[in-house]
This record gives sequence, structure tokens and C-alpha cells, in this order.
Amino acid sequence: MARRVRIAILGAGTAGLTALKEAQRHTEDVLLINDGPYGTTCARVGCMPSKALIEVAHAFARRDWLAGAGVGGTTGLEVDLARVMAHVRVLRDRFTAGAIRLAQSLGERSIHGRPRFLDAQTLEVNGERIHADVVIIATGTRPIVPEAWRAVGERLVTSDDVFEMVSPGRRVGVVGLGPIGVELGQAFAQLGCEVHAFTQGSTVAALSDPAVNASLLEVLGRQMSITTEATVAVHTGHDGVVLDDGNQPQTVDWVLASLGRRPNIDGLCLETLGIELDERGMPAFDPATLRLRDLPIYIAGDVSELRPLMHEAADEGRIAAYHALHPEAECLARRVPLGIVFTEPGAGRVGVSYRDLPASGVVVGAGDFSRQARALMAGRNAGLLHLYVNGADGRVIGAELATPDAEHLLHLLAWSIQQGLTVDGMLQMPFYHPTVEEGLRGALQAARRALSERREQPDLPLCRAAIDWALG
Amino acid sequence: MARRVRIAILGAGTAGLTALKEAQRHTEDVLLINDGPYGTTCARVGCMPSKALIEVAHAFARRDWLAGAGVGGTTGLEVDLARVMAHVRVLRDRFTAGAIRLAQSLGERSIHGRPRFLDAQTLEVNGERIHADVVIIATGTRPIVPEAWRAVGERLVTSDDVFEMVSPGRRVGVVGLGPIGVELGQAFAQLGCEVHAFTQGSTVAALSDPAVNASLLEVLGRQMSITTEATVAVHTGHDGVVLDDGNQPQTVDWVLASLGRRPNIDGLCLETLGIELDERGMPAFDPATLRLRDLPIYIAGDVSELRPLMHEAADEGRIAAYHALHPEAECLARRVPLGIVFTEPGAGRVGVSYRDLPASGVVVGAGDFSRQARALMAGRNAGLLHLYVNGADGRVIGAELATPDAEHLLHLLAWSIQQGLTVDGMLQMPFYHPTVEEGLRGALQAARRALSERREQPDLPLCRAAIDWALG
Repeated sequence: MARRVRIAILGAGTAGLTALKEAQRHTEDVLLINDGPYGTTCARVGCMPSKALIEVAHAFARRDWLAGAGVGGTTGLEVDLARVMAHVRVLRDRFTAGAIRLAQSLGERSIHGRPRFLDAQTLEVNGERIHADVVIIATGTRPIVPEAWRAVGERLVTSDDVFEMVSPGRRVGVVGLGPIGVELGQAFAQLGCEVHAFTQGSTVAALSDPAVNASLLEVLGRQMSITTEATVAVHTGHDGVVLDDGNQPQTVDWVLASLGRRPNIDGLCLETLGIELDERGMPAFDPATLRLRDLPIYIAGDVSELRPLMHEAADEGRIAAYHALHPEAECLARRVPLGIVFTEPGAGRVGVSYRDLPASGVVVGAGDFSRQARALMAGRNAGLLHLYVNGADGRVIGAELATPDAEHLLHLLAWSIQQGLTVDGMLQMPFYHPTVEEGLRGALQAARRALSERREQPDLPLCRAAIDWALG
Repeated sequence: MARRVRIAILGAGTAGLTALKEAQRHTEDVLLINDGPYGTTCARVGCMPSKALIEVAHAFARRDWLAGAGVGGTTGLEVDLARVMAHVRVLRDRFTAGAIRLAQSLGERSIHGRPRFLDAQTLEVNGERIHADVVIIATGTRPIVPEAWRAVGERLVTSDDVFEMVSPGRRVGVVGLGPIGVELGQAFAQLGCEVHAFTQGSTVAALSDPAVNASLLEVLGRQMSITTEATVAVHTGHDGVVLDDGNQPQTVDWVLASLGRRPNIDGLCLETLGIELDERGMPAFDPATLRLRDLPIYIAGDVSELRPLMHEAADEGRIAAYHALHPEAECLARRVPLGIVFTEPGAGRVGVSYRDLPASGVVVGAGDFSRQARALMAGRNAGLLHLYVNGADGRVIGAELATPDAEHLLHLLAWSIQQGLTVDGMLQMPFYHPTVEEGLRGALQAARRALSERREQPDLPLCRAAIDWALG
């Protein structure tokens, strides 16, 4: 006889665990089924270990500036890459521990094994049959590696392996300059490695605005060699791995393949569900409710490929569990899209990206950070911010940027865009001096000039129009 | 015969120069009168040189953390204080240059000299009489130094002199731990100086929340000796300056007196105006319009003592000039109060401060940054955030904090408070992972628990309630 559960969650990553927590607000009758390692993509191999590495790299990279500012002895600083990698793993393990404990705490409500669908409400795991009223697929993704490159063996790594390297060689190849490639490429370059990076596209760090991209490439290009619009062959040479883009072949000690990720749907037997699958085997689903057609099945997190970012995976886990248990409920809105890349300067996009702007009706406000006052004080002055504004009503609809403290400016922008603020509305907010937020103000002022709004009064609301924000 | 002008501005600092720019939108018939040095308090002796020093200090202070993360040779790093001070002055001079040029560019519309009122519309400067339709007083402030301490001579400095020091001694006394004292005290301590700091109050960095203050003092106390609630005598000893608080006298090479500032109104002859002056000689004025009673005289910037901060001085300059030229116009609202102190962790307050909270009806949400994930990755995990929430409607009305990246969290908070956002409204905004903004989310979640609002759905608005933020 099959085990019966109210809700089965496939995957114990970020989406699966937040789906679990949301479900547990309504029922204890849950079952978590996980194949592969525990501990979330973010904590194990993604945002957390990469940030641990990046923080060391960024801090070490301050030494030349410090030397110019009056600190002696900086030329005696030396990176012990093996120790840095060990440091990264110690920090990483602190963050995976929580997710592992949560899965363990479920006892019999947590199964390790690969599930497959027998029908829409029946799963088989480790030979056991499970009947679930609803199922949430939150199985995540894994890095893409071209089959031909596997011949290189251990010298080819992905984000899955890179943080396991005990003592990485100092000649590094990076293929693919999305967020992962650009973050890790810059980090190893800042730590003193010789980095050769290649990417198929013309932009990096998931930027689409050519000018913003150029401002980031200007900085990165001083730290490592970057070839865009490149097609690279990877093969073993006599002294390492050879990266050949048809021009000058480069020999490196190891190569990071950061070419994107693919959904973990193999073996789930989605074809038994009787719904349409695309050529890669992905099922159609409603992006608002995350439900697969009219089946009692939901999909959440990176595997959905909607918004493969940790905070979005968490939202999708909650949305899927909420709708799984309240199928008639009104749908929940998503937050404004926000992507951050933790380079120095940081990069990112929020709201409508440059590539998705309509052909007309948009005003662009530019903020140049190459002489931004506060950034200059820290020797971190570089980059560009482009603000996209609806020319009809002055609302800010999106931005791309490569600036110091990008992660913080992007939060301010995201919160403003999600509230529908206009350029004038944002300019009425406080900007402290001296902060990098004043660089954002510069872009807003440029947008206002472009909107040709004549100012009748200083950047302040009339007394009667101001919100009474204190206790009523 | 008296020279006649539409508007005379006394003071070429931040408030005076923004008043000038606002006035010039309406008239070219302006006159700028300045006594003392040109170049704004902020750029000459305030926010800018202090940030230049602080950035070096904060970066140098990362060396022990870097050593633990795998970087060798950090014990060989050495600060050359004379070079650091020279570096600070080079950066400072870049920022004073703009203000000086602006005043010079006015030609005959700029006078150097000390003005005094003969009557409400008549000034005398360098023996010349000037009739002005309206006058804006923007004469700034200067540091307070107890008369008795002057006997110490050049070993006693204020923020006016500290950045002129060529080769400061490494035994440093600081008296007064407001924003200036705490910023410079920590900076010299981080640069390897032995710092002994004393303050009369029980809190530092303009904080008023005891718990937040304690979290900052815990960090600062590891870097320098701090005595609160102290009354200190300062006198010359045989080997430097002696600071004596009645317990253990400390001998230092020099003392920074950071005891606050007083308005520059001496010699203006405000008593000729026929309006009420307080015991210090300050005139009464309308805090909304900045007008002195019904006189054609306005007061703006630090001298008003309303909000002695650079961005507020700029606003007051604009407000004063706007009302001076449009006396019948509706008043302009002020931005939400925002004060930032650039220590590490940074400190600040926004909206209603702890000391101004009503006796009841306020819910406090706490965010502990001692284990905040992103801060931990950078070894910057420390501090506390206290959020003050109107218990009746869930609106966030203020906060005090001592956290990493405080300046950025304070902007997010200020913008949210100025818009009247509630705890739930803020939780609907995106929080990227991993960022320090997630520490703010923790405080919001704590506040929501304290408000006992049962969540019916995840932290997301219903689809129909969401603002359509993209192009319509």
C-alpha cells in the first residue's frame, strides 16, 4: 500500500525548504524528498562561498590604493591561495549546516532518494510508492558542461567544484562571463592569478546596456584578459589546459566553465503526466501560480527557470506551497526583478532591463561614478548608472549599473520602482552627504533635465503634500 | 550712497551657495558676502576630509581579518601618519576648489568681509553700505573650545585644525564623542594611535537608544579607551597634554576637542533689528520659512541650529532663498531627519529618535548584526538595529542603528519612512541574498511578530494590489 501525504516536496534546496515552511503553517502532513547533496545551491556552491572568496579578494585588492594613501609594506603582502580556499570552506559550512539540520529535523518526513512520477499524484522513491495530494517540484539546476570538454578531466571545474579546490593553480581560464564567471574571474584576478576569460556574448555580468557594460569592462580589463564574442575550444595541452578561441591559444592550470545551468528534471518521468513538454522536457506551467496546467503539481525555484536567484526561489517556494494548499486563492504578485553581481564595481539590473525597453517613450538618466565624491574618497570611483524613465509620466521603470556599492543602490532603486515612484518623487527623498547615493541623485537630476520639467520650487514637496510620517 | 541689491547672502558655505543658486533661478541681482575662509565647512574641515581619513583607516583596519583569511605579510604593514594626512589634504583640496571657484566667479557680486546690520535692510561691509531687499544669514558655526583649555596651545585642536596636522603624535586624546569625535577617534585608533576618549554623556555618535549605543561601544571599546559621563580637565604636562577626569590622568601628544559648535553671529549686530534675541543672541525665526519674524531676513544652514548637517544646510539655503523671493508661497516640507556617523560599524538615526519616542504605542523591532550572514562573510558582523514602529497602524516611524553599511540601510529606512511605509509594506520589497539589507528584514520580521499580525499569505501583495511599475 502506498504511503499517503498531503504535500510532497521534491528538492531540499531554497525553494523546497521555503515551500516546506509555508506548507507547515497549514499542515504537518508534509514529505520532503531530496536527491543529491543537502544544503541549497546558494549555501553550498553559489552565493555564499562566492561571497566569502570575493570579500577576501576585494579587501586584498585595496593594497595599492592603501600604499598611495600612506601605508607602507603593502608589497610584502602575499596570498596563500590554499589558505584562502580553506577559509571559504569554513564559512560556507556554517551556512550549509542550517539547511541540512532543517531537512534532518523532519525525521521520517524526509527521504533521501530520486523520485519519479507514476502518475500526477503517485511518486516512487527508493522503491516505495507515495500518494501525495499535491506535489511541488523544486529540484533545482546543475551547471552546463559541453560533453567534449569532459576529456580535460579535473582541470575543468564548475561552480560545483571550484570551492573544493585545495590549492588552485595561478593560471586560470574562465569560459562564460555571466554573474558567476565575472565574480569568480575577478576574485581570482584580484588574488594575484593570471586570468584569461572568454564569453560568447558582447556583454558580461548579465548586463544588456552597452554603455554600462563598457564601464564595467574597462575596470575588469585592467585585471584580467577578456575576450567577448568568442567561441572557445578547450583541450588538454602538455603544460595544462589550452583555451583556443582561434586567435592566440592560452595555456592555463584550470578552467572554470560558467556557461549557465540546466533544470534537474531527468528521471522525474514528467512524460507520465500527460501534459505538453517542450523539446528539453520542461512542462508548461502558469507563471503566476506556478501550477502545471490543471494538475495538482507545482514547480518552484531555479528548476522553473523563471527567475533563477535565491530570493526569487524562496518566493516561488512560498507561492507554490500557498497555491498548492489554497488552489482557489487569488494569485500573489512578484517583487520587482532585481539582479546583483558582486564585482567591484558591482553590477546589476532592476525593473525593466535595457534589452526589454520599448522602442520609444523612454528617457535615460546617466550617472557617472568615475568622479563620484564619496567613491573618490575611497579610491573606488568608477562606473556608470543608467536609469530608465517612462517619458510620459516620469516614473522610473528600470536601471542597469556598474558602480561602487551597487548592491545598496539597487535596493533603493528596486524599492522605489516597486512603489511606482517618479523621478521627482525620488528626488524628494533624503540623500546624505557624502554618500554614493548622491551618484544616483545625479542620474535622477539628469533624467529630470531630459524630461524637460521646469522646476518651480526646490526638490521638496509642499507642506500639505508631504506624508505625515511620524506618530499621528 | 548705498549699493542696492535684490538679495544679499551672508556666508559662502553650503547654505549660502545653495541659496545663491536658488536665487539665481529668479534674479541675477545677488550679493554674496563672506567672512573667513571660502570652501564650505563640509569640504574644508568636515565631512570630506574626515571621510578621506576614515577610508584609509577602515581599509588599514582590515589587515588582521585578511591575515586570518589567508593573506601573509600583514604584520609588515605600517602607517606613515604624515603621508596619510598629506593624502587627506590632497583629496580635500579637490572638493574645496569648486566652492571657491563658485564664489570667485561672481566677480563684483562677491565681497570678502565681515557684515553687520545697520537696520533690517542695510548692511555695512568693509565700510561700504549695502541696501538689500532681503538678506539671508548663512554664516555657519565654529567649534566650541573652553577658554581654560586654550592654555594648552597648539596641542589642542578642533576639526578646524586637525587635518592641518603635518605629523600627528600617536598618543591622542579626544574630548566629546558626538559624530566628529567618534569618527576621528576611531580613525586614529585604527591607524595605530593610542586613543583616550572622554565624553560627558552616556551615549556616543548622537545615538540615544541605550542598546544600540552599547553595541557600538562594544566595538569602539576594543580599539580605544572610552570614558563616558566624564568631566575632563585639560592641562599641559611635562611630556604632553594631561587629560584628567578625576580618576587616572592620561598624557597624550595632542587633544581633539569635539564639544559641539556655536553659531557665527558675533558682530552681525542682530540687536539692531529690534526683534527678540535669546540669551546667546540668537533671533527667533519660523522653522518652516526660516524667516526672522516679519523682517525681510532669513536664516539658513548650520547657523540656524535646526539641522546642522550638510544636506539639510543645502535644503535650508534653497528654502530661505525661495521664500525670500516668494514670501507669499506655501511652505516647503523638510525631508525625514537622517543622521549618519561613518564609523565601522556605522551609526545613525532616522525619523523619530529613541529619545523622542512617545511613552507608549511604539513597537520595537530588533535586528542583531553580530551574526548577519553577509557581514559575516566580510568579517564585519557587529552591531544592532532598532526599528520604531507605530503600534496602531504598523508604520515605521524611526530607527537607530550601529551596523555594517549603516549609511545604505539608513537611506532605505529614510526613504521608506518619508513615504509612510508600514512594516508589511517594507517586507513586500525585494531583499537580495546575501546582503546586509537582510539584516534590516530581520528587524522588520521581529517588529511584525511584536505587532502580532497573523500572516494570511507570504510576504507578497495580491496581484491586484501590486503597483504596475512598468510602462503602462
